[in-house]
Formats: sequence, C-alpha cells, structure tokens
Amino acid sequence: MSRQDNEAYGALAETFQRIGVMTDVLGLLEWDQATLMPEGSAGGRAEQMATLGVMRHEMLTAPAVADLLAAAGDAADASWEAANITRMRHMHAHATAVPSDLVAAQTKAAAACEMRWRTARKENDFAGLLPSLREVLRLARETGVAKGEALGLSPYDALLDGFEPDARTAQIDPIFADLADFLPDFLGAVLERQAALPPPLEPKGPFPHGVQQDVAHRLMARLGFDFERGRLDVSAHPFCGGASDDVRITTRYSDDGFLPGLMGVLHETGHAMYEAGLPADWRYQPVGAALGMAMHESQSLIVEMQACRTREFVGFVAPILAAAFGDDAAWETDNLHRFYSWVKPDFIRVDADEVTYPAHVILRTRLEQALIADDLDLGDLPGAWNDGMGALLGITPPDDTLGCLQDIHWPSGAWGYFPTYTLGAMAAAQLFAAANAAVADITPGIGRGDFEPMMGWLRANVHGHGSRLTADDLLRQATGRPLDPKAFQTHLKSRYLA
Amino acid sequence: MSRQDNEAYGALAETFQRIGVMTDVLGLLEWDQATLMPEGSAGGRAEQMATLGVMRHEMLTAPAVADLLAAAGDAADASWEAANITRMRHMHAHATAVPSDLVAAQTKAAAACEMRWRTARKENDFAGLLPSLREVLRLARETGVAKGEALGLSPYDALLDGFEPDARTAQIDPIFADLADFLPDFLGAVLERQAALPPPLEPKGPFPHGVQQDVAHRLMARLGFDFERGRLDVSAHPFCGGASDDVRITTRYSDDGFLPGLMGVLHETGHAMYEAGLPADWRYQPVGAALGMAMHESQSLIVEMQACRTREFVGFVAPILAAAFGDDAAWETDNLHRFYSWVKPDFIRVDADEVTYPAHVILRTRLEQALIADDLDLGDLPGAWNDGMGALLGITPPDDTLGCLQDIHWPSGAWGYFPTYTLGAMAAAQLFAAANAAVADITPGIGRGDFEPMMGWLRANVHGHGSRLTADDLLRQATGRPLDPKAFQTHLKSRYLA
Repeated sequence: MSRQDNEAYGALAETFQRIGVMTDVLGLLEWDQATLMPEGSAGGRAEQMATLGVMRHEMLTAPAVADLLAAAGDAADASWEAANITRMRHMHAHATAVPSDLVAAQTKAAAACEMRWRTARKENDFAGLLPSLREVLRLARETGVAKGEALGLSPYDALLDGFEPDARTAQIDPIFADLADFLPDFLGAVLERQAALPPPLEPKGPFPHGVQQDVAHRLMARLGFDFERGRLDVSAHPFCGGASDDVRITTRYSDDGFLPGLMGVLHETGHAMYEAGLPADWRYQPVGAALGMAMHESQSLIVEMQACRTREFVGFVAPILAAAFGDDAAWETDNLHRFYSWVKPDFIRVDADEVTYPAHVILRTRLEQALIADDLDLGDLPGAWNDGMGALLGITPPDDTLGCLQDIHWPSGAWGYFPTYTLGAMAAAQLFAAANAAVADITPGIGRGDFEPMMGWLRANVHGHGSRLTADDLLRQATGRPLDPKAFQTHLKSRYLA
Repeated sequence: MSRQDNEAYGALAETFQRIGVMTDVLGLLEWDQATLMPEGSAGGRAEQMATLGVMRHEMLTAPAVADLLAAAGDAADASWEAANITRMRHMHAHATAVPSDLVAAQTKAAAACEMRWRTARKENDFAGLLPSLREVLRLARETGVAKGEALGLSPYDALLDGFEPDARTAQIDPIFADLADFLPDFLGAVLERQAALPPPLEPKGPFPHGVQQDVAHRLMARLGFDFERGRLDVSAHPFCGGASDDVRITTRYSDDGFLPGLMGVLHETGHAMYEAGLPADWRYQPVGAALGMAMHESQSLIVEMQACRTREFVGFVAPILAAAFGDDAAWETDNLHRFYSWVKPDFIRVDADEVTYPAHVILRTRLEQALIADDLDLGDLPGAWNDGMGALLGITPPDDTLGCLQDIHWPSGAWGYFPTYTLGAMAAAQLFAAANAAVADITPGIGRGDFEPMMGWLRANVHGHGSRLTADDLLRQATGRPLDPKAFQTHLKSRYLA
C-alpha cells in the first residue's frame, strides 16, 4: 500500500476497532439479558442496546468512513490488511444501503410481530399473525431491494449476503436441488434398515441439573473450552455469545432427558471454539471476526454432529453418563449410539435428526425465496408449507403450530438466514472428512476424549483465518475443493446405511 | 426559556441521554467484572471499558456541547430543566478542565500504583510504594490545579467537587473541627459507660452462606428492594452498581460471622433504594442522577446505621437470625443490640464502629488536604498518620499496614473522596431525625420490619429530587437547615450515652 493508503488504513482500523469493541459490549449485554437480568429491567436494556446499536451504525456510516474506504485503494494482494479492507467495505455497504428510517421501521415491526407470533403459535392462529407478518415481509423485501441495488444483487441474495457473505442463490439452489433429490430415497432406505433394528432404549434418569452441568463442564474441558476465558450458564434458548476472550455459552437442562442439554452444550462449544480460535492479532478488526453464519454453524456441527455422534465418541461418553446418572441398560454403547442416531421424520425443525433436518431447511429456503420475490402470497403460506413437507418428508402437519408457525426467524425479521444451517452441515461433513484424511489420530483421539488433534487442525485451517478468505476459498485450501454436497451425502450414507 | 434556548436544550438533552446510557452500560460491565467475569477476560474488559469511557468523554467535551451550553442561556428559575443545565455544565466543566494526556497519565499511574499498593500493604513496605504514590499524588495535584483554574476553586476543592458537587473546604473544615473537638471526650465517656456493661456474646455460628443469603433476601425485600429490577450477588468488595432500573448490589459472606455480610447488605440496599427512587421522568439526564457521594453515603447509612442499629430493628431481626442460624444466647435482643453497637478504637477504618469512624475520616481528610497543598511531604506521611491517630483516637498503629497503607483510595487516584463518608453519616443522622419528627410511624415501623414509612419519606424528600437541588438545599427543604454537625452528635449521645 502507498503512504496515503496507509494513513487511510490506519484511520479505518481505529474506527473499526471501536466498532468491534462495541459489538463485544453488545454481546455481553445480550448474554446478560438472556441469563440473569431481572425481568423488569427489559426496558432499560432495550434502551442501552438501541443506543449502542445506533452509535455503532453512525460510526460505520459516517461520511469519513466512505472517504477513507475510497482512499484506501484496491490492494488486491493476499494480505490480512487487504482482506480487512474487503470486510470493512462489506460491512459499510450493508450499513449504508438501507435508509435509517427503514431500519427503524423494520426493528419496530419485527419487535411487534415477534410478540404477536408468541401468541399465534400457541393458539395456532396464522390468520391473527398475518397482518403483522405481512408488514415484516414488506419491509424485509424493501430492505432486500435497497441492499440489492447497492450491492448489485437480487433482493433475496442481498439479504442472504448479510448473514453469509458471498453466498448466492445461484450456488445454493443446485446444491439444495441435489440434496432434495437425494434425500427422499435415502430416507426411505434408512427407515427400512432401521426397521430391522431393535428400537433404542431411552435412558430413564432422573437427570439432576447439577449433574448434567458437571458432565457438561467435563466435556467442554475435553473439547478445549477455556473456562478462564468463558462460561457456561443457563438460558431459555441455548446460544454462544459474550465477547472476544470472554466466550459465554448457554444451555438448558431438561428433567426428562439428558440429550437436549448435552447436545446443546456440545453444539455451542463448537461455536465457542471457533470464537476462541480467531486470530488474536486481528482482534476487533472485521478480518479478525468469524466468517458468516454457515461457517459458524459448520463449527458447531463438526463438534455436535460429526465428532460427537461417532461410535468412538459414544464409546467414550457412555461410561461417563452411566457413572453420572446411575445404572441403566440404555447406557450400553451400541444402544446409546442407536439412540443418538435414530431417524424419525417429524414436524419440528429444532427437534429433527441429522437426516431429516436438511429437508426442513430446503423447504424454508424455497418458501422465503418465493415470498421475497413475491412469487408466493403470504396468505398461501400454510398450504405451500404443508405441500412441501409432504413432498420432502412424506408427512403433513396437522396444524400451523406444528407447521409454518414454528420458527421465530421470519416474525423477527431474519429473512435469508435458513440456508446457512444446511450449508453449515455440509461444510462440517466436508471439513471433518478432510481433517481425518490429514490427521490420522483425529477419530481415535475422539474415542479417548482427546479433541486436540481435531481442534489443532480446525485452528490452523478454519478458526485462525478469521474472515481473511471467503468461505469457498477457505474450503478450497482446507479440503481441496469448494463446498461439495457429495461430502455430506457420503457422510450420511456411511453413518446411516453402513 | 426562549425558542433558541429550547432548541439548544433539546440537543443537549439528546447528547446527555446517550452519555447517561453509556454510564449505565459501564456500570453493568463493572458489575459483571466484579461478580462473574472469567479472570482471563480482564484484558478484553479493560479494552471495552476504556473504549466506552473515551467515547463518553469525547461526547461530553465535543465543541458542539460547549456551544450548546453557551446558547442554553442562564435560566435561573427553579425548573428541572434549569437544574439539568446546571448539572450538565458541572459535568462538562470537570471533563474539559483536564487535558486528555493528563487523564491518560493519571489512569496509567493509578493502575500501576494500585498494583504496587497490594504488595506494599501486605509487606508493610511504605518505602516501596513511595515512588509510584508520589507520581499519583503529583498528577492528582496537577489535575486539581487544572480543574481549580477552570472552576475558580483551590486544587483540593476542585478534586472534592468531582465527588461531591458544591462541597468546599471552607464548609467542611469547621464542621470536622467541631467533631474532632467533640469526639475524644465523648469517646472517653462511651468507653467508661461501656466498661460497666457485660461484654456482648458473639453469635457462634456456623453461618452457612446460603442461609446468610436467604436472610439477606428477606431483609432486602423488607427494605423495599425490587428484585424485578435488581439483584444481589457476591463479590470480593461489596458495592452497589448496575444500571437504571437494574440496580445490582453485592456482598460477601464470611464463615466466621454474619455481621459483616448482613451489614454490607443493609448498607448497599440503602444505596440501591436511592438509585431505584431517582425520578424516572429524568432517567439518563444529569438532573435525574443521584447527588454526590456524600448524599449517596447518607442513604446507605440511614439504613445501616440509623435504622438498622436501633433497638427496634434489633428486636425485629433477632428472632429471624435465631431461626436461621440456630439457638444461641447471643441472639437475645439486648445482647445483640450491645454486640451491634459496641465501641472499640482500632486501626482499620473499614472495621470501625460508628463512634470512631469519623476520626479515621477526619485524619485522612486533613492529610490529603496537606498533601495536595504540598504542606506535607509524602515521605512524612507515616509519622503524620501515627501522630493523628494518637491525637484523635489515642492509639498508635504498630506498622504502616495497619496505618497509612490500609486504604486503596490514594493509590487508585481518589483524592478528595474521604470527607464524603462522614458528611454522609452526618446527613443521615439529620435526615433520620427529621423523618421521625415528620412521620410518627417510622421507628415503630422499623420495629415491625416495615420500612415503607421511612422509605416513603426518603423518596419524597431525597430520592425523588435526583440532583435538582444542591445537597444543602435538599437538607434545608427536608430538615429545615443545612448540614448541621449537631444532629450527628445528638444521635451519638442518644445511642451511646443514654
């Protein structure tokens, strides 16, 4: 870079450092709100988060930032600095594309619709939700159009790009079409094979929360979670949040079963290891942050689905669970493995197994694409939903509560988010296969409860890159090819049909 | 106000709203750091707090704020708006008076000195602390000079004014002189009378932390603490923090005794009730915030010292403690009251009883005045300290650990803070007497564990005013006269000699 570029870069780095620190503070406020904030403090917390959010937006969209980004030039080299400028431009483009009154209208409409949705879901009342959801959709579409004009993308791709930079419908559609072709027959074969197996015994419990938490702490430590720079707490919905060098994950413990709590912890620990492994030298800078939601999900799923549902991990964890929760034939390794990997098409996405989950995502992706493009009227959503469930999974929801009312995403304004779940699952399969090919001890290590071989490879090939590379370039470097749906299908076949 | 004034006022209110919200966020980050932040996250937290602190300082000192404050004119009326502008000018004057490199040097020197102090106190090594404490003192003096020039005050008064607006040496010195005259003879009389009493039995325990916490929650609820808008947690040093509508107090529980934990909770709950009772209509504005540290301390002490060491309160709490911690002759009300109000001159301020505490404060106030004025060389502090203890309390510390090394204030850069403790104690006595004169049921209520009569009076006469009035004007309205040292002396006589 020239001297002038350097000055511009330095000034940008200073501004984005502040923006990064504010993002950390917002992460801590969100964590606090979800875990231990007194209920009556919600109004004050909303004020704090809105104020910091607006300030961050103002910093990002200040005219000086546009000038500096223009002055920073086009260093097309492979340096971290060049990648940092690319990430700055991406953040700046998204932030400046949408007029602030549209942002405000969206925030307000989404807050109201989310409230309405809680009741509508409970009461199976899609008609009651429709007016406010229409408004949220209208504003999402308007946002997509505004961002699309600024970024040279279709409205849907512009929304998707906000969650997963560089992901495009043109890439996703064929991948999802391929998967949608593959799944029904594959599912049939899995169910047929499964019918010949004894159904798994379900561990009986009781599952005291304190014991679940002890087990969670032990497994997190095995995964490499650093309790000197992070915490595990309880919240209604598990998440990974907090701040740089202070990664806080949450879970919830059920009285009835240990699996949701345990899998939640393993999943969020995967997210946490990504955050903890980001390049410390680039802390607070855009290039030092995680890639989009798909790569993040790949890191939670590589732990939860790839590593921790292997026969090896189940063999390692079964005696720990037996010692923690008491004698039960269900803890026998073969049974527990079968319990872990039982497949059953059902209506609710968040409860879905690994095989049927993608069908839920493909359905939602197709529907939200059609809704944003105005090819589907929102009033026709319940019918389209149920048709899709029939085609993809062969089941039809008995009502909208078990159908199109189940997810918070659309009411809360998150349009273009859904595909990242399955993109993440596919990337996880591809990365896990490549990791095992590169390091022979990864799966044996998992069998000993030693995750360091896997985490070492992930730090070097994923975490440590921050967002220096695009997702496809990262996959190319790490696995030899861009996202390849066959890796996921190979994984499913080897786990469920071998 | 004129139309132009109104515009200026509106713009100022908007800026100070943001500043107020950031103060809340900083309060929450501090609370989190003290209660549950993982140790390894300290570096990140320092970065977050420094960034928000600098941003708040920049907002406050922006040239536009000076222009707006000039344009806002001099509305000398008694409106909240006029008082708000006065408080804005006060904050602005303090923030702009000190060049930012001096602020930075001070922060750095204090952080280093505080670290050094932890070792020096442990090792009784005043000489080892001296160089870094000299630097902190030099910078404090420089700050006092800079603020003094801007505010038209002496350097010490300028520092004091940062903790307690409008407090002045010229007012404090005669008050403290009067108290210093009163105390030695009074203390002699108290000790003489006490010698004729049976020494109190000390409750034996054990005092399980969970039980202490249950008792704390019950008493906090009695005091009116709203757990829907606040929390009680544990930290190394008890404090009242958090944010508006989210008041978080902390305590620590000792295995050996219930009194420190209990009194800590009552003290911090007094602070919390002040915060919770501030005028909601003026939330985030300077006028909606609490008055200085002296009035804040008066609200903790009116609970801890005035209300909760009465014979009536002890009669109420004794059976609760007996039920919680098990049979013990020490829980008998007369004994517990004697235990609560036993006087013993000793070296450590934070462990001091109500009678000897002011002597500790007077000593520190005189010493820090002399050090800031350069009338006392820092190298002569240990001797001056020990002479003062002899004169005021008749005891001489055997070493500096029990003498001039005991407090964190000076090493951490808090010069001009000490007098607020005793100003608060005196205000508490004056307010409690006036409250009881105005509302007959206050002390009987306390005997029933019903604090509403007292809190109602405090909300109307103290909390609800925010910082609309000066401390003296508030006392004048509430008690009929400005701060009057006789009220405190009357209280001491009636409690300890009656």
